[in-house]
Amino acid sequence: MVKEYKVFAGNSNPELAKKIAAYLKVPLGKIDVGPYPNKETRVEILESVRKKDIFIIQATCPPVNDNLMELLIMIDAFKRASCGFVTAIIPYFGYSKQDKKKTGREPITAKLVANLLVKAGVDRVVTLELHSDPIQGFFDIPVDDLKSVNLMARYFEKKKISDLVVVSPDVGGTKRARDISKRLNAGLAIIDKYRPNFGKAYAMNVIGDVKNKTALIVDDLIDTGGTIVEAVHALEAKGAKRVYIYCTHSLLTPPAVERLKHLKIEEFVTTDTVPIPRDKMFPNFKIISTGDLLGETIKRILKGESVIELFKNNRRGK
Amino acid sequence: MVKEYKVFAGNSNPELAKKIAAYLKVPLGKIDVGPYPNKETRVEILESVRKKDIFIIQATCPPVNDNLMELLIMIDAFKRASCGFVTAIIPYFGYSKQDKKKTGREPITAKLVANLLVKAGVDRVVTLELHSDPIQGFFDIPVDDLKSVNLMARYFEKKKISDLVVVSPDVGGTKRARDISKRLNAGLAIIDKYRPNFGKAYAMNVIGDVKNKTALIVDDLIDTGGTIVEAVHALEAKGAKRVYIYCTHSLLTPPAVERLKHLKIEEFVTTDTVPIPRDKMFPNFKIISTGDLLGETIKRILKGESVIELFKNNRRGK
Amino acid sequence: MVKEYKVFAGNSNPELAKKIAAYLKVPLGKIDVGPYPNKETRVEILESVRKKDIFIIQATCPPVNDNLMELLIMIDAFKRASCGFVTAIIPYFGYSKQDKKKTGREPITAKLVANLLVKAGVDRVVTLELHSDPIQGFFDIPVDDLKSVNLMARYFEKKKISDLVVVSPDVGGTKRARDISKRLNAGLAIIDKYRPNFGKAYAMNVIGDVKNKTALIVDDLIDTGGTIVEAVHALEAKGAKRVYIYCTHSLLTPPAVERLKHLKIEEFVTTDTVPIPRDKMFPNFKIISTGDLLGETIKRILKGESVIELFKNNRRGK
Amino acid sequence: MVKEYKVFAGNSNPELAKKIAAYLKVPLGKIDVGPYPNKETRVEILESVRKKDIFIIQATCPPVNDNLMELLIMIDAFKRASCGFVTAIIPYFGYSKQDKKKTGREPITAKLVANLLVKAGVDRVVTLELHSDPIQGFFDIPVDDLKSVNLMARYFEKKKISDLVVVSPDVGGTKRARDISKRLNAGLAIIDKYRPNFGKAYAMNVIGDVKNKTALIVDDLIDTGGTIVEAVHALEAKGAKRVYIYCTHSLLTPPAVERLKHLKIEEFVTTDTVPIPRDKMFPNFKIISTGDLLGETIKRILKGESVIELFKNNRRGK
Amino acid sequence: MVKEYKVFAGNSNPELAKKIAAYLKVPLGKIDVGPYPNKETRVEILESVRKKDIFIIQATCPPVNDNLMELLIMIDAFKRASCGFVTAIIPYFGYSKQDKKKTGREPITAKLVANLLVKAGVDRVVTLELHSDPIQGFFDIPVDDLKSVNLMARYFEKKKISDLVVVSPDVGGTKRARDISKRLNAGLAIIDKYRPNFGKAYAMNVIGDVKNKTALIVDDLIDTGGTIVEAVHALEAKGAKRVYIYCTHSLLTPPAVERLKHLKIEEFVTTDTVPIPRDKMFPNFKIISTGDLLGETIKRILKGESVIELFKNNRRGK
Amino acid sequence: MVKEYKVFAGNSNPELAKKIAAYLKVPLGKIDVGPYPNKETRVEILESVRKKDIFIIQATCPPVNDNLMELLIMIDAFKRASCGFVTAIIPYFGYSKQDKKKTGREPITAKLVANLLVKAGVDRVVTLELHSDPIQGFFDIPVDDLKSVNLMARYFEKKKISDLVVVSPDVGGTKRARDISKRLNAGLAIIDKYRPNFGKAYAMNVIGDVKNKTALIVDDLIDTGGTIVEAVHALEAKGAKRVYIYCTHSLLTPPAVERLKHLKIEEFVTTDTVPIPRDKMFPNFKIISTGDLLGETIKRILKGESVIELFKNNRRGK
Repeated sequence: MVKEYKVFAGNSNPELAKKIAAYLKVPLGKIDVGPYPNKETRVEILESVRKKDIFIIQATCPPVNDNLMELLIMIDAFKRASCGFVTAIIPYFGYSKQDKKKTGREPITAKLVANLLVKAGVDRVVTLELHSDPIQGFFDIPVDDLKSVNLMARYFEKKKISDLVVVSPDVGGTKRARDISKRLNAGLAIIDKYRPNFGKAYAMNVIGDVKNKTALIVDDLIDTGGTIVEAVHALEAKGAKRVYIYCTHSLLTPPAVERLKHLKIEEFVTTDTVPIPRDKMFPNFKIISTGDLLGETIKRILKGESVIELFKNNRRGK
Repeated sequence: MVKEYKVFAGNSNPELAKKIAAYLKVPLGKIDVGPYPNKETRVEILESVRKKDIFIIQATCPPVNDNLMELLIMIDAFKRASCGFVTAIIPYFGYSKQDKKKTGREPITAKLVANLLVKAGVDRVVTLELHSDPIQGFFDIPVDDLKSVNLMARYFEKKKISDLVVVSPDVGGTKRARDISKRLNAGLAIIDKYRPNFGKAYAMNVIGDVKNKTALIVDDLIDTGGTIVEAVHALEAKGAKRVYIYCTHSLLTPPAVERLKHLKIEEFVTTDTVPIPRDKMFPNFKIISTGDLLGETIKRILKGESVIELFKNNRRGK
Repeated sequence: MVKEYKVFAGNSNPELAKKIAAYLKVPLGKIDVGPYPNKETRVEILESVRKKDIFIIQATCPPVNDNLMELLIMIDAFKRASCGFVTAIIPYFGYSKQDKKKTGREPITAKLVANLLVKAGVDRVVTLELHSDPIQGFFDIPVDDLKSVNLMARYFEKKKISDLVVVSPDVGGTKRARDISKRLNAGLAIIDKYRPNFGKAYAMNVIGDVKNKTALIVDDLIDTGGTIVEAVHALEAKGAKRVYIYCTHSLLTPPAVERLKHLKIEEFVTTDTVPIPRDKMFPNFKIISTGDLLGETIKRILKGESVIELFKNNRRGK
Repeated sequence: MVKEYKVFAGNSNPELAKKIAAYLKVPLGKIDVGPYPNKETRVEILESVRKKDIFIIQATCPPVNDNLMELLIMIDAFKRASCGFVTAIIPYFGYSKQDKKKTGREPITAKLVANLLVKAGVDRVVTLELHSDPIQGFFDIPVDDLKSVNLMARYFEKKKISDLVVVSPDVGGTKRARDISKRLNAGLAIIDKYRPNFGKAYAMNVIGDVKNKTALIVDDLIDTGGTIVEAVHALEAKGAKRVYIYCTHSLLTPPAVERLKHLKIEEFVTTDTVPIPRDKMFPNFKIISTGDLLGETIKRILKGESVIELFKNNRRGK
Repeated sequence: MVKEYKVFAGNSNPELAKKIAAYLKVPLGKIDVGPYPNKETRVEILESVRKKDIFIIQATCPPVNDNLMELLIMIDAFKRASCGFVTAIIPYFGYSKQDKKKTGREPITAKLVANLLVKAGVDRVVTLELHSDPIQGFFDIPVDDLKSVNLMARYFEKKKISDLVVVSPDVGGTKRARDISKRLNAGLAIIDKYRPNFGKAYAMNVIGDVKNKTALIVDDLIDTGGTIVEAVHALEAKGAKRVYIYCTHSLLTPPAVERLKHLKIEEFVTTDTVPIPRDKMFPNFKIISTGDLLGETIKRILKGESVIELFKNNRRGK
Repeated sequence: MVKEYKVFAGNSNPELAKKIAAYLKVPLGKIDVGPYPNKETRVEILESVRKKDIFIIQATCPPVNDNLMELLIMIDAFKRASCGFVTAIIPYFGYSKQDKKKTGREPITAKLVANLLVKAGVDRVVTLELHSDPIQGFFDIPVDDLKSVNLMARYFEKKKISDLVVVSPDVGGTKRARDISKRLNAGLAIIDKYRPNFGKAYAMNVIGDVKNKTALIVDDLIDTGGTIVEAVHALEAKGAKRVYIYCTHSLLTPPAVERLKHLKIEEFVTTDTVPIPRDKMFPNFKIISTGDLLGETIKRILKGESVIELFKNNRRGK
């Protein structure tokens, strides 16, 4: 028995919300969300939601604070309107890189955000490719962290590249690159940025063999693009034949596009978890939509069916 | 015995923070707060705060969501750095007009904000002229809501205006205007915007006598200025001799300045709870600083002395 | 699908509970509630409530502490008896005037009561005409604050009074009077009690025109009746032709009845949210029952239908 | 180092509060507590308590709901007034007999009361002779449950009664009677009320030897006195020479005094945890004050000294 | 309507879990629970539990800490796997004797355990014969404490013993013995261990008449058996004709079996709430299974039927 | 001003506790902690702790569940005994590898443990070399995660090894190995266990150059030792000249010692966060004590001095 439910969206990624609604064959719920002239966020729900299960689609991409507050205030409004269970679908989870204290007097903002969401009243969270796995543990409510690996693997398998090497652009991403290299039956390389001696400039150390091979740099997030650009140059220097880039979430904070569009790369492949305006797309820019994956997840949650099945294959290599 | 303490400030109102620190004769604490290129808020505390009582000065004026997140993340960072008691000094408390459900499917964002602050770890809150009194009850931690009435009364008393009438620009502000009229030993008038008949235009009804008198319009908050402008015109129509405006918090959201600077008013008097850039100040613009009041409040909190004494006179009329 | 439910009542207002049950066509649940000889409150539920949704009808009118404790203990008993969702129907919400700190070292008892109810385990609250709107925000659970304005407006509309002026007996009630005056298409006046000079007696200032008109004094709550009596006298002095009084909740704390029955008023109109013993009713005393409104609210909550629709008209003027 | 502190009292037991203050050589703090005409409880603190540790003396004896609400509201007021640590001194803890579900659909009101106190903001609780030990576990804050046994033992030891038998008036009090009998080096007997056969009347079974002995009936609480009266009669029937009664808390709910004053007993000994009006005291009525014990407890709490030492002897028998 | 549900078991009492599942005619859910080589507890749920109501059967008998952690970790895993309502069936509740502070600087571990279970996410608890009734109040979630008295009474009634005396082996168990004696229409005796004088050895005082009677010692828990053995010897010394022992939970901590098997007793009757290995059973050892009682309880919880009915008779004597 | 404090220890690592107390020049507090015969954990504090700040030293190494419950119950006892601030010093934090859901229906036990500690009442936690950084975010109380890198670096620097390569035994530890390699100014290599083809056996891929070099394998935790042994063999196969092993926490779960003592390694270097019985130490086994580091941390916490300074150097490479 599927309970009555409604799907609502904030302003962060309306295109993706429409795709999810289309997959589910339901209209998006009527809601008025946006800034007042003084920038306070305004929310008014325009249809009855009493006893309905609610799904809110909202990526917390830039402007992250506005998008996060929109999400928190929407949750507050739904709860006070006597709705049922509230599930936040957060395709891109902002602040997820701030998941630890690096020096000692820093916040752990990803945890703070988890606490704020729970305090506002959310009952369940669906995310996609969190920056680190322990963020799931920042919540005590159920979290389904979906994986885009199947989507991207299917895309690259079709290319039938025989000399593929999966490359992590820094040591922090080694495990992700290793998992994907196993999924694609490909080699593995790691790039380590280091300073040979005090006073000397940083150098890029490519650990693993990339000479005359097709390199696929994988990362979860591209921000201003600096690391990726250095990685591409390091791979070129080491004799890589061709370079592909895949990253799940593309913030493309300036000057990312400026940097990327001048690189000699085969393709830059990403998803639509963060909205990408048409004018940021350079010629070899490819987008894989996550709409069906998120729509199917909602369907399974409603039916009480397993969500794990959806992204099982990418676990195979473990 | 005054415990060791430090005062820190976010980016919302650095001028006021400096004034408060000057009053206390302490330097502002060293902290790195601000946006990353991707707009995520970055916080790093640059000196040891272990066991120190912390005061954070941050108005949640526009950009309200960024300023609020700065405050929340700073609180998180201080708490994780093993500080003592954290007091948030919030001279202007954003979202305070959203303190109730007006229609039925709205958030109560002022309550949500209170919950978020407490969840982040704040131990006490100091505010100034909250939009409504019950907002104090949104918190279960101590809240000291300061009043600027003494500051403004001292200012207007010096003018020795004998024919003063305090005017509330709408019915919602009647009680505030009444309190001030008693403090200044002045008359009282209320302006009620109404629609005489369905289909007809709104009209301004001035309840009370203002003819040939000096009117002082008082409000807690000026946003885009529409209501105030209509009030001034209504008072003019009713024969008021001169008009002053006093409002505590001046957001001056466009086109407020455009509207105000063309009005025929004696003075526009406000405080510095919200920073006002020099280019927004028109000729008869007067600012009363709240720096000493806030500094003295911190001093009394530290010494365990009464804070109520500070704003007792303005209660006299009740 | 309407879930199985049961309606129970404490001892505060059995007549109203019976009316609500009659509207719903269900018997009141069997429960033993009342004081032991030593005044401790005793509760024993006399029928199985496992998995049933529970509605508890209990006004927290005087004796407020006993009625409140009855409600809290009933909630505890229902929760421990493994019931489903518990909704407290609180037609009159005691302590609601204590919704703010007036001087500085006072409790905010209305917030405390909200906290106690939530701690005891209530899941939703239905109130009627709360003293101030922000009290809804004292809860983080859903609150439906019903309005009696439609009931009273229908009553007065039938009288077809053409020269009606709605009067607020103090400045605090201005907004309520304004809303009602718009609903009834009537004029507006405000009474302000003030002390002309230190040492002088208080005087009543009637702001607005009431001469030769029919005045309708509206208030949310009548306690000992002092303010109302002064208001009637002030209106008479200003030449009002006739005076009606409407107030939602009638505590009628002595000497209220003594005071009221000697007034020259057309009618004293109130509701049955607080039980009114027959011997307190003087000749022109009229009671409008809220039983159907509360019964219909329960019905809509059970069906997941909008409750806002029930009191929409009274919002029209906003 | 003793922190600055203040002692306040509600209206439940002003005599005991004065004794405690006298022991501590401090004046009681200035506070306005009591009912409004409509029976709502009014609290206003009349001196600054900022940063001071607060001790509130309030027995929750009848009228229990009013006394409990006074205590809860006082706690709320102190917390909001920015005080330090709040300790509630509750000499008699009402509702403590309601510490379990006896049948199945009952509240556990003693736990509810513990939850309400904590929710209101109390930091520590001091009680005296709780009805059952596990009630301490109803709190997660520190609870010091004092024992009056030393006080009463010293009183009875002076009488040098050689043939003393301590009697529990029901099986539930067996353990208390056993502990006291060991403390006084006396015999032990238990009275069990039972119904020999269905349809037959109840009978009192005295288990243990009381013939020609001096019986001391001990109980924690005397309410309407029925059980005690039956116990005295049963002891007389079994040939007890003389009967003393000791009970810690004397509610003396009518008709307790009527019943007790006609009994042939040597003395009725009790404490002042519950105020006893002079007209309820019959000739052989003796009161042992707990004022010094409670005063000394506050002193030790302030100094960080052991409280257990105070009532260690009465543990000797275990 | 019975919701979909699944029953899982930890490693503490697999035999009882199988009996419960057999009664319900459902298979036990697939789960991998047990220690890693380093003794950390490992849990993996091997089938989808999304939206299903979950019943976990786990006695917290020795090794109590391992069994408790298994239960807590299972609850965490079920909650994170998006299940419905989680009910913990805890046939023996370890640490329940630690339900109070005996001296003053002790934990109240039974309360701590209650808090840990709730923190882990359990929604309801079913226990059997808790050591003391107030432990139910340690939880604010619903607790059904079943009673084994009917099971044991039916067993002993068949024996038609006309001279039965129910004996409490210590004063703490007086109330339990009294209740059972009434249920079986039998006499009552209490054994009190005391030290006649300082320096003298302990002696056993049998209060009540057992001479030439059949004694039935009843206790809730047998641990190392010391008290019971002393009780049997005391009864023999007082001329009891025959002795039976009944205790609900048999931990049989060494040297309990050594002690018990040499006693001259008719039968040692107990239940299967704690697993008893075959080699601990001496000749006259009888086990009454609680499997059907627990299975029926689950059935009634699912159907929303009264659980109290199940153990009503044993309340008759009260 | 250093507040009065006391240091207590559970049974997990008494040697380390003594070293810490010796550094602080205080005796360990008197407490009775340990199992009852039935394996329930018994705690009794044997000296007054009222108002004292408490430090509890307890590693949650095997038997992890017993050690964790000891810690939780001690915290409960201290809190109920009215102590001040409770800091848990947890040199080894058990369950820290269970910090994420790997497949989908697993617990996040490290988070559960964090929740249980906070629920029991701990105010601050000090750990040493947590398995992953985000575990700090599992707590909302302050956590100081110390680093042993300085201790180990000082040890290895003295050896003046010029051809050192730091080796991570798996990809998950890459970041830790990279940080240490920078601290020691050494090379970096990573071992990746992979399965060349389905059906083929696993192989060890050494990424980076180790030929004729001195390898230092670093890991945070050694459990049964399987991975380390394979790493040593892989390094030998690749021509490493000599091999050192450093790991912070040595559980040495069987057959770890059997495996390690037969390896050809220069030294096995570890710390004393987990107690290592003498008979597990093979010839080239070296222990670096963390006693002074933990003692100094306590000292700084008491004085309100920076703890970060203590392990700053090891951050240098970042």
